[in-house]
Amino acid sequence: MEYNLEEIDTYAKRWIKEAGENIRASFPKILNVTSKSNPNDLVTDIDKGTEQYFTEKIKGTFPGHRIMGEEGYGDEVKSLTGVVWIIDPIDGTMNFVHQQRNFAISIGIYVDGEGMIGLIYDVVHDELYHCVKGQGAYLNEKSIPKLTKAKVSEAVIALNATWVAPNEQIDHELLIPIVKDVRGTRSYGSAAMEMVYVATGRIDAYLTPRLAPWDIAAGIIIIKELGGETTDLRGDDLDMLNQNSLFVSKPGLHGDILKHYLKGGNW
Amino acid sequence: MEYNLEEIDTYAKRWIKEAGENIRASFPKILNVTSKSNPNDLVTDIDKGTEQYFTEKIKGTFPGHRIMGEEGYGDEVKSLTGVVWIIDPIDGTMNFVHQQRNFAISIGIYVDGEGMIGLIYDVVHDELYHCVKGQGAYLNEKSIPKLTKAKVSEAVIALNATWVAPNEQIDHELLIPIVKDVRGTRSYGSAAMEMVYVATGRIDAYLTPRLAPWDIAAGIIIIKELGGETTDLRGDDLDMLNQNSLFVSKPGLHGDILKHYLKGGNW
Repeated sequence: MEYNLEEIDTYAKRWIKEAGENIRASFPKILNVTSKSNPNDLVTDIDKGTEQYFTEKIKGTFPGHRIMGEEGYGDEVKSLTGVVWIIDPIDGTMNFVHQQRNFAISIGIYVDGEGMIGLIYDVVHDELYHCVKGQGAYLNEKSIPKLTKAKVSEAVIALNATWVAPNEQIDHELLIPIVKDVRGTRSYGSAAMEMVYVATGRIDAYLTPRLAPWDIAAGIIIIKELGGETTDLRGDDLDMLNQNSLFVSKPGLHGDILKHYLKGGNW
Repeated sequence: MEYNLEEIDTYAKRWIKEAGENIRASFPKILNVTSKSNPNDLVTDIDKGTEQYFTEKIKGTFPGHRIMGEEGYGDEVKSLTGVVWIIDPIDGTMNFVHQQRNFAISIGIYVDGEGMIGLIYDVVHDELYHCVKGQGAYLNEKSIPKLTKAKVSEAVIALNATWVAPNEQIDHELLIPIVKDVRGTRSYGSAAMEMVYVATGRIDAYLTPRLAPWDIAAGIIIIKELGGETTDLRGDDLDMLNQNSLFVSKPGLHGDILKHYLKGGNW
């Protein structure tokens, strides 16, 4: 398949900014919140409208590209052949509803399975984190420095309290020693935002069970571009066609945590 | 003691904004980080300089006022008689060092022990949360709405993973059921910021053990002004001369969590 990365990147950046503007303009309106399967899964009209917006733009300009999106307006994607846009129109929906901040638009663009363009847009702060593979990563127009090694004892990691309490998804007993040994933990409630926090070195790692491809598609491209490690909690490659657990980290720290804490977990 | 709240408030707002400007201007400089007793307790030159700045301004303008500050440039305050400024020049020092965001300047002004003026300045986002007792609370010039009741099952609360793992400060077993029953948890790493998140309804409650008076002095004035509840984890009044555990919350939710989860804890 013929494709022009630079052209795709130009359109992607334009559309994500436009979508963000529309979201900012929507804040004063009363949000008409509906719920999916459980109260944790709030979805708003704006979430759906944003995905529709991307779908129309992409199909109109790149009819050969396919779209995998959280809200289901894209294609049923069962392979990563060709160009696939993996989109989360609002990552951190609960934050969007409760806070009108700490959420982001996330777009990862894959070519024959390889992550080529990553964009995460922190709409409220007008901060666009983006990269094209091999060309460095940027926060707006400013180059983001490469990630450097970190030690467990000096690390601040993103890990939600839910996973440290007994739960059905993850072996919390193995996470407790990590919490005790690191310098501190944080939790922001948006996988895309936690991933840009790792990419920019604001936190050193992020661990979580069971995310969908659209939650992580953009973030892992940006973190890889900066020399960070992106695997599941077993240390295995991530699969963009299925759910994954996630462990993204600065180099060095990733191997240490895998070896000394995560090994043998039922992830 | 004679005092003019309006005058104090005018100066306090001016000084906190000026101090914030100085902090923003310092970002490009390499931070000369020193450590206190443990690596969690990073303190920077800027932290100290900011407190000195307030001390000089306050002593120059209001020689009769006393100052309780984290960095020790104020007075040794053993009673709350008269006007006492309780200051944290940078609340969230670890975030300041690692992230250059998610920290705040916090100033609570007490008159004969009563919280009269609260100011929390999110320096990076230029967002000043402030109130004078009885006159409503504001985010910059915009009035913050009164807090409304919330249910446990719909609540998003700030609670750090550290307190859900076995630890020496707090009975983590009692916190686990809260984590399971609420809609979600967050952790931002700055008590002042978590308190403005409660004040603005972005989160519904914040629980933590052992904070110093300067961490909470401003936040509790603002939350009270908006109809929220501010106690320690036992439900008792907070003491501005000693360390406290902290439980701030929307109304309704506060009583529910105390009764059904926190009662009988070794807080």
